[in-house]
Formats: sequence, structure tokens, C-alpha cells
Amino acid sequence: MINLRGRDIISSLDFDRETLEHLFNEADKIREELRSRSILDYCHGKIMITVFLEPSTRTRLSFQFAMIKLGGIVVDFGLEQAASIAKGESFEDTIRMVDGYDPDIIVVRHKEPGSALRAAEIAVRPVINAGDGWNEHPTQALLDLYTIKRELGRIDNITIGIMGDLKYGRTPSSLSYALSKFENVKIIYIAPRELQIRREVLEKIDGLVEWKMVERVEEVIERLDVLYVTRLQKERFTDLSEYERLRGSYQISLNLLSKFKKIPIIMHPLPRVDELSTDVDSLPQAKYFTQAENGVYIRAALIKEVLGA
Amino acid sequence: MINLRGRDIISSLDFDRETLEHLFNEADKIREELRSRSILDYCHGKIMITVFLEPSTRTRLSFQFAMIKLGGIVVDFGLEQAASIAKGESFEDTIRMVDGYDPDIIVVRHKEPGSALRAAEIAVRPVINAGDGWNEHPTQALLDLYTIKRELGRIDNITIGIMGDLKYGRTPSSLSYALSKFENVKIIYIAPRELQIRREVLEKIDGLVEWKMVERVEEVIERLDVLYVTRLQKERFTDLSEYERLRGSYQISLNLLSKFKKIPIIMHPLPRVDELSTDVDSLPQAKYFTQAENGVYIRAALIKEVLGA
Amino acid sequence: MINLRGRDIISSLDFDRETLEHLFNEADKIREELRSRSILDYCHGKIMITVFLEPSTRTRLSFQFAMIKLGGIVVDFGLEQAASIAKGESFEDTIRMVDGYDPDIIVVRHKEPGSALRAAEIAVRPVINAGDGWNEHPTQALLDLYTIKRELGRIDNITIGIMGDLKYGRTPSSLSYALSKFENVKIIYIAPRELQIRREVLEKIDGLVEWKMVERVEEVIERLDVLYVTRLQKERFTDLSEYERLRGSYQISLNLLSKFKKIPIIMHPLPRVDELSTDVDSLPQAKYFTQAENGVYIRAALIKEVLGA
Repeated sequence: MINLRGRDIISSLDFDRETLEHLFNEADKIREELRSRSILDYCHGKIMITVFLEPSTRTRLSFQFAMIKLGGIVVDFGLEQAASIAKGESFEDTIRMVDGYDPDIIVVRHKEPGSALRAAEIAVRPVINAGDGWNEHPTQALLDLYTIKRELGRIDNITIGIMGDLKYGRTPSSLSYALSKFENVKIIYIAPRELQIRREVLEKIDGLVEWKMVERVEEVIERLDVLYVTRLQKERFTDLSEYERLRGSYQISLNLLSKFKKIPIIMHPLPRVDELSTDVDSLPQAKYFTQAENGVYIRAALIKEVLGA
Repeated sequence: MINLRGRDIISSLDFDRETLEHLFNEADKIREELRSRSILDYCHGKIMITVFLEPSTRTRLSFQFAMIKLGGIVVDFGLEQAASIAKGESFEDTIRMVDGYDPDIIVVRHKEPGSALRAAEIAVRPVINAGDGWNEHPTQALLDLYTIKRELGRIDNITIGIMGDLKYGRTPSSLSYALSKFENVKIIYIAPRELQIRREVLEKIDGLVEWKMVERVEEVIERLDVLYVTRLQKERFTDLSEYERLRGSYQISLNLLSKFKKIPIIMHPLPRVDELSTDVDSLPQAKYFTQAENGVYIRAALIKEVLGA
Repeated sequence: MINLRGRDIISSLDFDRETLEHLFNEADKIREELRSRSILDYCHGKIMITVFLEPSTRTRLSFQFAMIKLGGIVVDFGLEQAASIAKGESFEDTIRMVDGYDPDIIVVRHKEPGSALRAAEIAVRPVINAGDGWNEHPTQALLDLYTIKRELGRIDNITIGIMGDLKYGRTPSSLSYALSKFENVKIIYIAPRELQIRREVLEKIDGLVEWKMVERVEEVIERLDVLYVTRLQKERFTDLSEYERLRGSYQISLNLLSKFKKIPIIMHPLPRVDELSTDVDSLPQAKYFTQAENGVYIRAALIKEVLGA
């Protein structure tokens, strides 16, 4: 098992299976302890700074709640404001300055792939990647796997369909890397050809995971243990008529689901727009709000380990 | 008396007289305890999230100070940011997600009337309405009544003039509902005909409160125990020349007040623009900044009761 | 020595030498105590509100970290939001309201020179000026002097070159005032004529400090103990070709520095853009990130004194 104390968390490839399972157990324990109390003492007097240089509400709040429930303190960098952008400070200078304030842990989101790694190289303090462009979002992968584990009782021997814009999404890549740490996992990437998973992702999981690509969810839906839906991003299409043509095939509705054998669980990183209709919410298999809840506990487990608390 | 523990606070109609008086007493006690300390222990380790989806500074800060002075912790949802709006998550999804972070109490402001009630229906955790469009703002009514009680020594047997844009204001409706819980209250609604109080408000207070409508403050000013000024909103007029004609009659200045018998107290929910000139500030009857101060204590009393702390 | 307890901190002229040296010692002590703990207890249960009505990230964060590391609580006013600006509340009303929330200390930044003094006149609670337009930024001067003291071992008998836009900068004025409290300090103001230091600044330090003005850094660079770089603001020039002509003379690079005798220390208030190239960062004399770090400790020392903690 990897000792996470003081480590930067940049990629979901950084974890091994034992460490992931340890985090799941820790998250369960924290959840249990929080049944009778609103906050715990593990990180009492410790300071986290959340530096989200790209607009974000949900991931930021999830990290904040995680830290606060551990008894810690959160300082938010805030939106990079109009005048500061005009002043034009570089990302490197920002990170160096933030590190100089001497927080115990730094959580970073930035639109450029590789930015979290650059931050980690600059900062003395541990850095957690909360999303670096289309590259990675390792704590999203943690909460995804933690949800699968809790809902299916296992991560080994599952078939998961990951659907939507796989090319520009950081969730599909981080999730794939994390899944590659388990046994006999099959990933079916469901996307229009122009938005299929990036080659670099496949190269990293090749030989560890059995994968295939399909264009239509209907082809594979009955084989899935998990259907993981993400948004099909209209702005990625060069040909809008192509988007309009494909759109319907990438919308999950109660009507569509009713035509097939029941999928054990349906997941989504949220926020969702129309790729997952609200009539699905009432199904017991709909686990996306549970995912969001799980995010607080697994992030708390991670922070606790990184701080050695 | 109503036990507020775990309850949603959506409308000022939800309170009865005994509960209101209990809250006033609790607010006085909290104020007294805060004379010698900056913060208390009542909500130690409890978490409030403030979800203001409409720009707001004053009400948000007042709730934050209330919670912090009780020893609690505040997480702010933050302004719904450019990209998230683009992502287009629904209000329902937002509330469900926030509720899943498991705060002890949720404070919500949203531009749509009825949104706070919808939030309360979705959330497991107690929801406090901090303003739902033109509909209600119950904690504003609490601080208004608390101020009247402290300044006049009673709420029964008063005549109050509520002036300005009564049609689209949430303050006049919530204040009217709360006043209807007391004895022998007379409300005089002072507004141009097109901005008079909504019929639904009158229906709810009819038989409980004696009310009348007038167009000019001069007609009634000498009869008032309380003059409650709100802003006449230019943007509500279809005919701008009408606005220009009426404007002067809805501006309270030292000059205007000097022509009449002294009004015991002058109130305003703030922020004010030019409907209440700054030369009034020096009068001992000007109680609007006192109102704002009272807001922290009465909100603290409410939070304490809802959390059963 | 001045007893700072309960005092407003508006200008760096308000300090005397003994008080400044006391603050430096206190900052060193706080830094020492923070080696083994993330937060201290001095301001436990005390509340600071940061009211930054002009966009700012770094100064606000530095104050927040300072307060949190003293064990205190921070409430941020937030960006004055679109709708609130539309509502048009005056600065005076804002300060009076914030003061009414009864924080223990108020930190204010506002674009108008003199605004911090106006805030201090209105508020019962102590006000710290975090920048009032081009006028002053006294806590920046504190961290600048604290850095010089730590790096050179003295503030007496130094020659400092202050370079950039001196006319519209608040850093050069506050720094000059603070330096005037020490013995035998020489200030060389390095700026194009149209952006030279304001006459009022010179009047206040005249007879206390030996000063001169030059246009080019090369003329004086070998005489300096400290080179203090600030940004040359393009938007201040009426004649852009003049800006383009001057620009190169106000950029400090490794190449420029290599032509001269080593300057003991190079400082900058940050954020920097291209007036100080990143190739300088690796020099041991580059102390601008150290300055930013020092800011947290010296602000903590100041807050501790003002709160009598």
C-alpha cells in the first residue's frame, strides 16, 4: 500500500488497488463516525486552500465539506477576478504565492492539461488535482469506484459502459485508469467516432482492462453492470447537423431503459443537462446523487491520508 | 408555541405569536451573551450552507454572522458561475446535491416565487427561505418585528405605514403576514395604484389586520407609529413619465418630515438609494441601521431553535 | 511605542519606529510558533470581515491566512455583485452595516483615496486599510520593511531604488512613509517623468529621508541595497509611443542585472507581469516570494496587536 502522507495526488494511475481499498474503508469509517456528529477532529487546526481557476461549484463544495467535516479549515482562493486577470499573473506565480501562505494542503483546478503536475512541482505543500482540463480528475474516479464498490459489492469482474463525450472529458480517463487496477474489468466506450476515448488513455490501460468501442448504447446495454453517462458536448462538433443526428442516441430516458433488461446501476458525474432525463431519477438503479454524497466521504478519506491525520 | 426544531422556515405565516415572542426573547439573550464574547457555543460543530442563487450581500452576511456568532461553521455555495450556468443544472438538482453534502441547515435565496418551498420538499435537511422572488422573506419580517418590539415596547395596537413598491416586494408581504399575528394592528399601504400590495396578501391578512391603501404619505403620516420605507423601483413602471411624476411623493427627507408631527420610528430594509435621504440618518427615530444589527441576533435565535441547539 | 489596541490602521505614517520594530519581533515570534502548529490560539473566537470592494486576491488571502493562523474566523464580504451595484448602496451605508454585524476587526479595500479613513470615521470597530486607491497600502509597507530587516539585518543606512509607476501606485507612497521612520535612508525614485512620485509624498518625507529622482535604473543600480520594482502601467500613458519607448528601461531581467555589480536584494509587491522577468527568480537576491510569505506573519502581528490578543 502506498503511504499517501505528504504526497501529491495528480493522476488516478498513482493509486494501487490496496490503497484504493484502504481509502474506501476509511471513507466508510468516516461516514459511520459522522452519523452521530456533524464534524470530526482529524484535521483540527489544519488549513486547506481551494484554488479553482476554472469555474466550478460542485467539486469545490465537495472538497470544502470533506475538509470541514474532518474538523479542518478551508480558505477559498476565489474566482480569479477581472482586475487580477488584467494584471496577468502566471499560474506558476499564483501557485508559488499560495504555497507561501503555508496551507497544509492545496486543491487545484485549472483548464490546462498538466497544470496540476506543474503546481505540484512548484509547491512544497501537497497538491490535489481537482481537474486539469481534459486530462484527469482523480478524485472523481475515487468517488466513482467507491460508489461501484458500495452498490455492487465489487469492482472486479464488472462490465461498465462509459458514454458521452469521451475525447474531451477528464472523467472517462481518470475512471479508466482507476478501473485498470482491478481484475477482469471490461470497459465499453460508447460515443460517436469523433468523440471516442483518446488513444493515450487506451495505451495506459491496454492489457489491464478489456475494452471496446461502440457507437450506440442499445448495442451493449443488456451486458452492462454499470452505465456511466456523461454529457455529449454540442460545442465539440464541427458539423452541427451531425450533433443533431447523434443526440438522441446519447440521451438516457425511462422510455429507452424500459426496452431493455434492467441495468444494475446508472451513474453520472453531474451536473447533468438533457443527456439523462429526470424521469430516470425515481429508479432504484439511479445512483448519481449517491455518487455526489459519496464524494464527500472519499475526499475526506483522501485528505486525512495525505495530511497523515 | 411551535417547536421549530428540524422545521423548514418558508413563510412568516408559519409562526404564531407565542413563537415570535419566544424568538424575540432568545435574540435578546443571545445579544446579552455576546456583550462579553465574540462567539458562543450553541452551534459548535454545526454546518450551515448559504445558497444564494440571486445576487445578495447583506442577507447572506447577516446569516453568516448569525451562524458564526453561535459558534457554527458556514459554507457559501458561491455565485452560480458562468460555466455552471452554461452547464444548466436545474434548481432541483442543485438542492438535492447540496442536501447530499449533509449540512445541518440550508439557507436559500432564489428569484422564483415558491422556490424555497420546492427546496424544502426536496431536501432532508431544514431549509430557511432567505427570499423567493417577490413572494416572501420571512427572516426580514422577523427582524422588522423584533425592531418594532424593541423600539416601541409592543407590536399590538400600532399603526404602520408601508411605503414604496409593494407589489413586487417580498418584504411588505412577509411583514404583513407577521403583523397579522398581533392584536389591533393597522397597516396603511402607501404606493401608487400600479404598485399597490398584491390581493393575495390582503386575502391572507383580512380580518386579522385593519388595512387601507393610500397614494400619498402626507395623507397619513401623522397617524403612524412606524413608517416603513421601501424602494420605488423605476424598472417596474411601463410609463416612465408616470415614475418621474410620482417619484417625489415617495422620497422621505428631513425637509418632508419636518412639516409633520414626529413619527416614532422610521424603518427601511436596506440597501436604500434615494427614497430615504441621508439627512434623515441623524434623527433618533431613524432605526434602519439598528434593524440590520437586530437581524443578526434574530436570525441567530431562529437558527438555534431550528437546530435545537 | 504606540498602543495599537483598538486603533484604526490607515497610513504607514501612523507608526513610529519603536512600534514597527515591535511588530517585526512579534511577526518573528508568530512565525516561530507556527513551525510546529498550523494555527495558534491568539484570536480564537474573534471575527474579521474582509471588505474588498475592488478586485483583489493576494492581499485578501494574506489577511485571511493571517487571521486564521491566529485561530480567528474570517467572513468575506464578497465581490460587490451586479444587482447590489445596481441597487447603488453608498460606501458609507455599506461600512455602517458591516460595522453593525459587530465583527472584531474590519479590513477595507476601496478604489477611492481616503476611503479607508472615511470607513474608520463611521465604524465603531477598528478598520485596517488594505489599499485606498493610489493613496496608501500600509500593510504592504509593513511587509516590505519586515523583509528588508530580515534580509539585510537593518533598515537604517540603506539606499533603496523604487522603480515603475510611482505616481499612481499606493505601494511607493506607503513604503516611503514607513522608511522615513528610520535613520539615514536614501530613496531613489526611478520612473519616467510623467509617472514620478507625487509631490505630497515628498513633502511628507522631506527632511527625514534623502531622496532623488532619476529616469533610468542603470544610472543608479550599483549604489542600491534594495531594488524595489513595480509595474509600469501602460494605461497611464497618454502617448503610447512614449510607453513603447520607455518600456525596455523599466524591465528587470537577468541580462540587465548581469551587467552590473550585484544588488543585495530585489523586491516586488506582486503580481508581476513583464517588468520583472522570470529568469531573475533563480537569483538568491530575488526576495519577492519571500515578501509575500512575510506578509502573512506581519499582518498576523498587526491584527494581534489591534485586537489586544
